[in-house]
Amino acid sequence: MAAAHQLAFPMVMVNDADCKHLFDNRYGTGQSVWDGINRTTNLIVAGKNAVVAGYGWCGKGVAMRAKALGAKVIVTEIDPIKAIEAHMDGFEVMPMNQAALTGDFFITVTGCSHVINLEHMKKMKNGAILCNAGHFDVEIDMAGLRAASLSSIDQRKNIIGYEVRPGSFIYVLGEGRLVNLACGDGHPAEIMDMSFAVQAMSALYLVQHKDSLTDKLIPVPREVDQKIARRKLASLGLSIDVLTPNQEEYLHSSAI
Amino acid sequence: MAAAHQLAFPMVMVNDADCKHLFDNRYGTGQSVWDGINRTTNLIVAGKNAVVAGYGWCGKGVAMRAKALGAKVIVTEIDPIKAIEAHMDGFEVMPMNQAALTGDFFITVTGCSHVINLEHMKKMKNGAILCNAGHFDVEIDMAGLRAASLSSIDQRKNIIGYEVRPGSFIYVLGEGRLVNLACGDGHPAEIMDMSFAVQAMSALYLVQHKDSLTDKLIPVPREVDQKIARRKLASLGLSIDVLTPNQEEYLHSSAI
Amino acid sequence: MAAAHQLAFPMVMVNDADCKHLFDNRYGTGQSVWDGINRTTNLIVAGKNAVVAGYGWCGKGVAMRAKALGAKVIVTEIDPIKAIEAHMDGFEVMPMNQAALTGDFFITVTGCSHVINLEHMKKMKNGAILCNAGHFDVEIDMAGLRAASLSSIDQRKNIIGYEVRPGSFIYVLGEGRLVNLACGDGHPAEIMDMSFAVQAMSALYLVQHKDSLTDKLIPVPREVDQKIARRKLASLGLSIDVLTPNQEEYLHSSAI
Amino acid sequence: MAAAHQLAFPMVMVNDADCKHLFDNRYGTGQSVWDGINRTTNLIVAGKNAVVAGYGWCGKGVAMRAKALGAKVIVTEIDPIKAIEAHMDGFEVMPMNQAALTGDFFITVTGCSHVINLEHMKKMKNGAILCNAGHFDVEIDMAGLRAASLSSIDQRKNIIGYEVRPGSFIYVLGEGRLVNLACGDGHPAEIMDMSFAVQAMSALYLVQHKDSLTDKLIPVPREVDQKIARRKLASLGLSIDVLTPNQEEYLHSSAI
Repeated sequence: MAAAHQLAFPMVMVNDADCKHLFDNRYGTGQSVWDGINRTTNLIVAGKNAVVAGYGWCGKGVAMRAKALGAKVIVTEIDPIKAIEAHMDGFEVMPMNQAALTGDFFITVTGCSHVINLEHMKKMKNGAILCNAGHFDVEIDMAGLRAASLSSIDQRKNIIGYEVRPGSFIYVLGEGRLVNLACGDGHPAEIMDMSFAVQAMSALYLVQHKDSLTDKLIPVPREVDQKIARRKLASLGLSIDVLTPNQEEYLHSSAI
Repeated sequence: MAAAHQLAFPMVMVNDADCKHLFDNRYGTGQSVWDGINRTTNLIVAGKNAVVAGYGWCGKGVAMRAKALGAKVIVTEIDPIKAIEAHMDGFEVMPMNQAALTGDFFITVTGCSHVINLEHMKKMKNGAILCNAGHFDVEIDMAGLRAASLSSIDQRKNIIGYEVRPGSFIYVLGEGRLVNLACGDGHPAEIMDMSFAVQAMSALYLVQHKDSLTDKLIPVPREVDQKIARRKLASLGLSIDVLTPNQEEYLHSSAI
Repeated sequence: MAAAHQLAFPMVMVNDADCKHLFDNRYGTGQSVWDGINRTTNLIVAGKNAVVAGYGWCGKGVAMRAKALGAKVIVTEIDPIKAIEAHMDGFEVMPMNQAALTGDFFITVTGCSHVINLEHMKKMKNGAILCNAGHFDVEIDMAGLRAASLSSIDQRKNIIGYEVRPGSFIYVLGEGRLVNLACGDGHPAEIMDMSFAVQAMSALYLVQHKDSLTDKLIPVPREVDQKIARRKLASLGLSIDVLTPNQEEYLHSSAI
Repeated sequence: MAAAHQLAFPMVMVNDADCKHLFDNRYGTGQSVWDGINRTTNLIVAGKNAVVAGYGWCGKGVAMRAKALGAKVIVTEIDPIKAIEAHMDGFEVMPMNQAALTGDFFITVTGCSHVINLEHMKKMKNGAILCNAGHFDVEIDMAGLRAASLSSIDQRKNIIGYEVRPGSFIYVLGEGRLVNLACGDGHPAEIMDMSFAVQAMSALYLVQHKDSLTDKLIPVPREVDQKIARRKLASLGLSIDVLTPNQEEYLHSSAI
């Protein structure tokens, strides 16, 4: 809408604030996704192959916790830079077409549609577990799966099995909706505080600067991000260093 | 009883089998304890201080997963060797008396009684979470706590708060019973298979060798442990190397 | 110079390219700093307190590898957002004034001056090891240390001990110059390939677009970063997913 | 010799002491092997496939640090229990015959001979790095390699390349001798203190008990192991909990 000049008022891109994506997306999603999977499946994660589709901040969190639980992690990506990051973080990187063959758990965190499509699902091992922690229930092609499966079974609370080949079932958690919400309690309140602060402080900023702002997308001002972080630190009882005048001068000199 | 020559039949020490304690205790308890804590509290673990009392196989599992979730881990021990192991694994080591002051989560996995006593509990931070994953509900002195607390509150399912100082509450999960059972679904079945196999195969061993066994404690025979492990590997689809005759000879030579 | 309109030609900010800081700074510095420390000191890292000053990409790499080697990591920062990141990554966060008391290893990676000053050094434990992996040999106040120490000793190759209190020595590696260069072989060539590619491709970009560029600082164009990453992936033998036309359409729709 | 009743005096099995294998083997070997590899090759470890042959205490240390440096770890074993441990620790488990195809680094830590044989080496990727951290230079079949290679090249200090297929070279560090000794400074003194204490205290024990000991192999007495550990803790400035009389009584009761 912004690109088409259709915004009727200034908007702050709160999802891009450091105090949002560096914390809520990574530590919140990372923990709550596996909380949702574990309490729903009661399967052991150690020794399994966990396929994480998408290596953005959420995907980084999900992959980090998968590894931490003892899984071997496979990352799929469309962005070459994120793919190399995943590789350097010690994860296998491959297309979903190939990952589909070996995954025990599949978690989509891309924001895109049909990241796991019918072709992928037909290849999966009997017993594979699928879930989504991205935007909506479109990351896994649920409609295609429902239409093409030979049978389905209500296996356990929040787990439906779909027969994708004769005698072979794959299991979808929470109907492909966000697994941490559908199969858990969502993010811990403690990790949402910074995200909500970004929204509140950004609204305040809009009001305070309404005369000088135009109907455009604006990033969360650095000062807002910093103020929220300083308050969070204080609430955690943590103090940090402060630049001395000499250090300020050094940093602004041409010496560096 | 064995020490007092009171055993009326031969007994196999199934809990000491490699196929039991190396797996069920470590990976089973490690995952299921945090599953129980997370689904019950919905608190973020990253950045918190997790105090693990006991660094046996269960404690190692609980500490490993605490670190994996982003906690700073403090280990308390009575055994100096295990204490140095914890230190070398990158954990803080200190007496409970001191750990009580900084812990956010406390998990007892010792098999002993009153590992967390009233003196410890009175020192804890407002909001500290306590739970037990050891033998029974005696590791935390629940009777002492109930008697001495100024008030108590049913905070949330499976969480009771006890006012240990005026206005300061500590929260006990599952009444101090095993948190993975009381507040979760216990160990995943997949990790219990080896433990149950140890029991079944040990019973079979007793029957098959009943004529030659005396009324003593016997360790799980190495051949039983190995047989179970080989079947588990096969079920996982894994194959491993086999010694060649030359290697067998080398290992039995005096060269090494 | 750019801020003062003193640039005489267009300049590309190669150090800010994703293909530079996400890889060379993090994985290159992370490994090579500890390689330099280990080969120079031959001390065990497990169980030690490692203080990392600065939690930028280099600091993240150094802290990640310190933890991986079994150290307990303390991070000092001036930026509140990075400080919370370090906290959530499971590290202690505190001012250098406090960290000075407990650190066994100190590594500065800030780009600033006198991050470790004389006041800090006088507090340190006997036997503390100091080194720098930031820009220059100003991060540790070497001049102040040399002037104020009671004596100094050439302890071992690349290690000089300074007596900061009677009988108490702290040890500086490589005279406070970059420890991976002064005490090691620098970054592995494999991790520098992307950094050098950024420089080469940016130079090419400048030549190809010389008519349209003004004498300003320009970021590395996204297309250059992506092209380098794709070539790197190919050299690693890795392939990744590609958006389908339907997915492209979905991502540009107003549905998300 | 003990099995053949050929011992002429009592011998203590110092290598089996907890204060030896739990520390020196794991943390000492783990760190020093990668120190040796890194300083010799100057290759990045992150993203590489590291094949660790043997998952005893040394192998666990080497694998743990390989993962910590960002490698994907493959473990080969002959013992099914250790193989499942490796699997549950999140590592790939497969025979060497298969691992040979994908490894970038190979480290043998088995105590056996020809763990990597000529057949394996002929399959390896061009550029594979081989080294040994086990007992002797027999774990890699160096004689076979030298005899069968088409050519060899002195690539860099402590690195010899062998042409195993036309145009394809594999590189052996330190002639297949212990890589941490041949290509580094061996274990840090700090981690050897406990091992040496085991030897000294065991010798003292032999002298003090010479009248009651027979010419057999005896394990390191528990009291010796514990005494060493207590002194080590004290030297680290660490204190731990002590059982109360009530706890002693509980542990010896039939309640548990």
